[in-house]
Amino acid sequence: MRVEIINTGTELLLGQATNTHLGYLAQGLFGLGLRVERQVTVPDGPAITAALREAMARAELIFVTGGLGPTSDDITRDAVAEVFGKKLIFHQEILDGIAAKFASRHLAMNDLQRAQAMVPEGGVVLDNAYGTAPGLIVETERVIAILLPGPPGELRPMWEAGALPWLKKKLAGRLAPVHEITLRILGLGETRVQLLLEDEVKALGPIEVGYCARPGEVDLRLIGPDPALVRKAGDLARGRLGDAIYAEGGVTMEETVVLLARAAGKTVATAESCTGGLVASRITNVPHSSEIFRYGWVTYANEAKITELGIAPELLEKHGAVSAETARAMAEGALRGSDADLAIAVTGIAGPTGGTPEKPVGLVWFALARRDGPVDTLQRNLSTQRETFKYMASQIALDLVRRALVA
Amino acid sequence: MRVEIINTGTELLLGQATNTHLGYLAQGLFGLGLRVERQVTVPDGPAITAALREAMARAELIFVTGGLGPTSDDITRDAVAEVFGKKLIFHQEILDGIAAKFASRHLAMNDLQRAQAMVPEGGVVLDNAYGTAPGLIVETERVIAILLPGPPGELRPMWEAGALPWLKKKLAGRLAPVHEITLRILGLGETRVQLLLEDEVKALGPIEVGYCARPGEVDLRLIGPDPALVRKAGDLARGRLGDAIYAEGGVTMEETVVLLARAAGKTVATAESCTGGLVASRITNVPHSSEIFRYGWVTYANEAKITELGIAPELLEKHGAVSAETARAMAEGALRGSDADLAIAVTGIAGPTGGTPEKPVGLVWFALARRDGPVDTLQRNLSTQRETFKYMASQIALDLVRRALVA
Repeated sequence: MRVEIINTGTELLLGQATNTHLGYLAQGLFGLGLRVERQVTVPDGPAITAALREAMARAELIFVTGGLGPTSDDITRDAVAEVFGKKLIFHQEILDGIAAKFASRHLAMNDLQRAQAMVPEGGVVLDNAYGTAPGLIVETERVIAILLPGPPGELRPMWEAGALPWLKKKLAGRLAPVHEITLRILGLGETRVQLLLEDEVKALGPIEVGYCARPGEVDLRLIGPDPALVRKAGDLARGRLGDAIYAEGGVTMEETVVLLARAAGKTVATAESCTGGLVASRITNVPHSSEIFRYGWVTYANEAKITELGIAPELLEKHGAVSAETARAMAEGALRGSDADLAIAVTGIAGPTGGTPEKPVGLVWFALARRDGPVDTLQRNLSTQRETFKYMASQIALDLVRRALVA
Repeated sequence: MRVEIINTGTELLLGQATNTHLGYLAQGLFGLGLRVERQVTVPDGPAITAALREAMARAELIFVTGGLGPTSDDITRDAVAEVFGKKLIFHQEILDGIAAKFASRHLAMNDLQRAQAMVPEGGVVLDNAYGTAPGLIVETERVIAILLPGPPGELRPMWEAGALPWLKKKLAGRLAPVHEITLRILGLGETRVQLLLEDEVKALGPIEVGYCARPGEVDLRLIGPDPALVRKAGDLARGRLGDAIYAEGGVTMEETVVLLARAAGKTVATAESCTGGLVASRITNVPHSSEIFRYGWVTYANEAKITELGIAPELLEKHGAVSAETARAMAEGALRGSDADLAIAVTGIAGPTGGTPEKPVGLVWFALARRDGPVDTLQRNLSTQRETFKYMASQIALDLVRRALVA
């Protein structure tokens, strides 16, 4: 079954809003074994009709988001009625429902609201628990169109409570779920991953192999109709990639770290220079991170490294702030100053200034210290784009913690 | 001139990534007086060719993002060559450049990289300062296609340094620029802003008023063809909104804070609990922030507040970690422990657990301490969604620093 999504909204095409509907619906549909084949954004107005005609020629299931409101540029309802050849019928009970919502919020209703009570002949009405415009489902013999309101706070509950259950019932027996494994890999480029395994994976049978690369890392996607085959491909990939895989599915590095630390009953402290608090902030994005994270330092200046982490001024003088020795001393200082089991330290040159020929912008030293255990140090040359640099450095720092927790 | 954008990437249609390119490019094009008429997302693979053919039939300027990498699913280059009827030519100097990038990072290059050195005949090559795949511009007599890499950290600098200057030159004389003022406002909702000024602004003449709302803040956009009129509208809005405006244009709160602090020759220290390092991380996203930021603490646990910021255990015991008294003591402790002129402290309940009827999830206390000056404290109830909560709290914390710097 071919699925397409039409997102309407001039604000999307002006860059004033970001399309979060595509991702939300795509994830929900994937769970039914359906994949979105194409998505288009058109401005409010007549472009909706053209996009609908095109989608109808290709797809059997079409979602349209937005354009269901009461104002003059809300024409999704009319466009669908026209393209599907359905008359629009007035439904008094919808208008009564809208009137009740206005009354309960002590607002006056105006005549424009009446447009929202028009339903293409034979259409299914989806209740809008958080707004006035109802959703609609309109069918021909070959095509289903599902019309959902634009505000995410209205669309999402309507998908959950209305559209999803309707689809499940409608398509019962017709769905052929696809199976997917996503492996998240740090420290290997996408071509390296491809060379390591793609030919062998494809030789197993019908498996789609996809890559999504980000700076310093890549997601490997294995998709296919046969669960046993996808599992086999996943096992093959895990065997080849080993501990370069830091998570599976939609799990983030920081979630992995918090999960592993909680499971091991260990706590982590951070001592950051060039990442400026990003490692701590990412850890504390995870619910319940307070169980494993208690102390963090952002020692951006040398004086802060000396007074807060107890680093000897002579050490800084001799080796410089960006060095294995300083990273190690920062991690050891964080252990001394806290009750943590592990401490991670990062020090580097984020740029744009501060680099030298010997220590260029992008250079970072990491240290991972264990209570009553050895200290690991690591050096990397990362992006010279400041925010990318910080993200990559925080990712490697968290990965060192992850590796210490699984070792 | 009709503009369309084709975003390629199976991950977008699977809901594994969000499309941020559309908004970014739309905003940049808007500055040139160009509006995006349609955007389509297609999976990696042959759908790109079909989407290109359709766009070519309608548009004069087509952007394609993604699919320029070295792996088997990267086919944008081939698709454009095919649809535009251009041969692909190997460019040794591109491969040499890629080889140099690999060498500088001590990585081994493999044969797959060679694909990235192929250029459609007569095409313009856009340098990729932060990755390997170059961008490309391919033209026919009627249509321009601009191919940009998928990673935002590569696309954005390439747009700024390569595609935008090229377009400006190419379209010189053909563009009818629009004028725009964007005011970024914290602490007033969009309907409040609308009621404060929209009628009066519109009475000035042809000015388009737009709002882009985010949790706790809103961007006000004033757009029109007449620069004098847009300026006048801007002045009117500034008069009405006063110091609720924290920045203009694309400037961020953290950039404003670093700019003001550098201008005043003041330094700032941070003492964070619930924001977990996010305030420090946002400050250190700004180049040259090391001039104004030297010391930061992430005192997530009470013990850390006691040992690192010198807070009296009795104070914590009596008032709790989330209180005006603790926030004040944290900010004062950060001043004592550093050489900063200002210290900002944040303590609150990010959730999902830890709330009580008296102190619910979302409650935050802020304190801003000045060396030899008064301490301000502030209480807010923010979102109960963890990451939104952290962002809103960091925004208010930075705003307190901003207000202290302009006072």
